[in-house]
Amino acid sequence: MSNILSLSAPLAPGATIGILGGGQLGRMLALAAARLGFKTHIYSDESESCAFLVTSSATRGGYHDQDKLKEFAAACDVVTFEFENVPDATAEFLATHVPVAPDARALKVAQDRLLEKNFIAELGIATAPFRAVASEEDIFGAFRALSAPAVLKTRRLGYDGKGQQIVKSADEAVLAFSALGAVPCILEQFVDFAFEASIVAARARDGTFAAYDPPKNEHESHILRRSTVPAPLSSERTSHAVAIALKIAEALDYVGVLGVELFVTHAGEIAVNEIAPRVHNSGHWTIEACAVSQFEQHVRAIAGWPLGDPVRHSDAVMENIIGKEVERWSGYAGRGGGLHIYGKRVARPGRKMGHITSLSPRPSV
Amino acid sequence: MSNILSLSAPLAPGATIGILGGGQLGRMLALAAARLGFKTHIYSDESESCAFLVTSSATRGGYHDQDKLKEFAAACDVVTFEFENVPDATAEFLATHVPVAPDARALKVAQDRLLEKNFIAELGIATAPFRAVASEEDIFGAFRALSAPAVLKTRRLGYDGKGQQIVKSADEAVLAFSALGAVPCILEQFVDFAFEASIVAARARDGTFAAYDPPKNEHESHILRRSTVPAPLSSERTSHAVAIALKIAEALDYVGVLGVELFVTHAGEIAVNEIAPRVHNSGHWTIEACAVSQFEQHVRAIAGWPLGDPVRHSDAVMENIIGKEVERWSGYAGRGGGLHIYGKRVARPGRKMGHITSLSPRPSV
Repeated sequence: MSNILSLSAPLAPGATIGILGGGQLGRMLALAAARLGFKTHIYSDESESCAFLVTSSATRGGYHDQDKLKEFAAACDVVTFEFENVPDATAEFLATHVPVAPDARALKVAQDRLLEKNFIAELGIATAPFRAVASEEDIFGAFRALSAPAVLKTRRLGYDGKGQQIVKSADEAVLAFSALGAVPCILEQFVDFAFEASIVAARARDGTFAAYDPPKNEHESHILRRSTVPAPLSSERTSHAVAIALKIAEALDYVGVLGVELFVTHAGEIAVNEIAPRVHNSGHWTIEACAVSQFEQHVRAIAGWPLGDPVRHSDAVMENIIGKEVERWSGYAGRGGGLHIYGKRVARPGRKMGHITSLSPRPSV
Repeated sequence: MSNILSLSAPLAPGATIGILGGGQLGRMLALAAARLGFKTHIYSDESESCAFLVTSSATRGGYHDQDKLKEFAAACDVVTFEFENVPDATAEFLATHVPVAPDARALKVAQDRLLEKNFIAELGIATAPFRAVASEEDIFGAFRALSAPAVLKTRRLGYDGKGQQIVKSADEAVLAFSALGAVPCILEQFVDFAFEASIVAARARDGTFAAYDPPKNEHESHILRRSTVPAPLSSERTSHAVAIALKIAEALDYVGVLGVELFVTHAGEIAVNEIAPRVHNSGHWTIEACAVSQFEQHVRAIAGWPLGDPVRHSDAVMENIIGKEVERWSGYAGRGGGLHIYGKRVARPGRKMGHITSLSPRPSV
C-alpha cells in the first residue's frame, strides 16, 4: 500500500498514466484518460496492440524485461493494468519504481481461483462450494464433498471459458483434469443460477466507494454477449451486492475500478463467481449512460481524483461484437446507439472486436 | 464535389482519417474516430498540437508545403479540417490527391465575411444588414446605409472577437478601420439580439441531414462561455433555424458537421451571424447528452456512414474552461459532469483549455 500513499497529491492534467496491456480495455482507458488531459503510456508484449493507436507513448516489451519495465516506470506518474494476467511479480517490480494501482495483491488474488475463493469465503461472502484439486487423488474426495454437476477449473490463466469444463462424475473429472494438463485446479459446485449479474465499482485513494447499477449479464459460449441495466434485482438485493463489492474492495485496500461477477439463484440469493481487478466488460454501457464512465472512474481513482457520480441517466443494453461479426460493421453503424470498434486487425473466433450500447429512457420512479 | 463522389464505398474501420489542424476540435475528432475503429493522422503547423497526443500518426508541416501535404494525402483515406482558417488552396491541393470533406468551397465562403454574407443573403436567409468596406471612402456611404451602432469586421481571419470593433459613428469607424490595418472589411449593423443560438447539424454524403437541438449561447469577451440546451425557442422557430442550416448545407453540397451561429431578436426573429464549416464549440454537450456526438457525427458523414440519431436524452449545460481557469482543475474534477481538458501546455489568456458539461433530466413532453 505504501506505494499508493507515496502518491500524496492528486495527479495534475498533463501527467502520464502507464497501462500494462494493450487490448480494448487499455484502449478505452487511454481514451478516457485523454479526455481528462492525461497522457498515456501503453506497455504490451504484443506488436499489434490496439491501444497503441490511441496513446501518446507506447513500449513493446515483455512482462519480465526489467530494463524495459524500469524505463517505462520512469516515464509514468502512476501505473495500472488492463488485464488480470499481468504477472503479479511485474506489478511488484514496478511498484518499487512508481506508484501502481490497484496493488499487486489484487492481481495475486484474482489470478488464482483457489486464493480468490478462499479470500472471498474468509470475508463471509457466499461463493459456489469448492475444493482444491492438485492431483487425481484429490478429485474423488472433492467430488464426494460436492454434488454433481460440478465445474473443474484451472487455478490460473482461465478466461472466457478457457481452462474449465463441466463434469457430471468423478470419472469425467479425472478425464477433464488430464485434458486441462493436470495443472492445479479447483472443483466447483455448479450453480443453477437464474441469471448472472455484476457489480462494477470504484474505490478512491481516500476510501470513497462508488458502484454503478448492476447489469444482468448473458453469456454465449462462455463469452459475454449482452449486459442489460437495470438487472431484475430488488433494491435490497442490489444493496447486498454492492455491500459485497465494498467488502472485497476494502479488504484489498483497492484503488481503481473492480468487477465482481455474481450468480443470482432462483431463490434470489447472491454468490460471487469471480473478481476482476480492472475495468469490466459488463461496465461498458457506462460510457453512454453515465456522465463518468467506468474507464474515467478508474483513471480518477488511480490519479487520486474524486470519483464521479455513478448515477445513470438511461437504461442501457450493451452487446459485444465478437469475431467475424465485426465484418457486419455497416449494419451496426446503421442501428443507432453507441458503437465501439476496437481496431483489432484479425477477427479470430471468440475475440472481442467491438460493442454497441443502446439507450432507452429510464422510467421515472 | 467530384472528389467526394470518388469515395464510392463507405470507409471500413481501420481506414485513416486525416485531420488538418491539431487543436481541441482535432483532438476530439480523433478520439471519436478511434471509437469507431478508425486510425487518424493529424497535420498541423504547430509543434505542440494537443491532438498529436491522441492520434496514431502525426505530421508537423506548413499548410503550403506541397511535398508534406502530398505525403499526408497518400497516408489518408479521407481528409477533413478542424478549423476554418486552413487555406482553401491547401484543401484544393489535397483534393487532387485524396477525397476532402467538407469541400474547399465551404472553407472559401466561411473564411471571408463578405463572401459569406453575400452567400447567405442570396439564399434568402436573414443576416444583419451589411456593406463592404475596402477603403476609408467606403465607410461614409456604408454608414449612411446602416444605422448606428455598427460593427466593423475584417473580412478574413477573425475569430473570438479578434478583428472586429463596435463603432457608433463614421468617424469612429474610420479610426477602427485604420486600427484593424486598413484591410478589407465589412460594416455590419449591430443586432440588438435577445440571445444567440446555433444549429449544429450534419449532412451525409447521400444528402441525409440531421440537426441537434439548438443551444442558447452566452459569450464573455467575445468567447463562448456557456451553451445551454434547449434554447428558449418555440418548436416553430427551431424548425425555421434547422431549415436555414439545411438550406446552407445543401447550397454548399456540404458533407460533415457545420455550425450556424444565429441571432435571435427580441421579436423572436432569426438572423444568421456566421457559418463554421466544422464541428462547433456550441455542440460539445452532444458528447454527454447524445448517443452519437457531433465529433462522431462528422466522422460518420465524411466516412460515408449513416448519420447517428441526433436526439438528446438529457438537458445540458456546457461551460468552457478558459485560460488560467484550467489551474482550478481539481475544483472542476469535484463538480461532477463530463470534464474535458485538452492537454494544452500553456494557458494563454482567452485560450480554450477545456470544458465541462452537466446533464439534467429532460422534462417529459
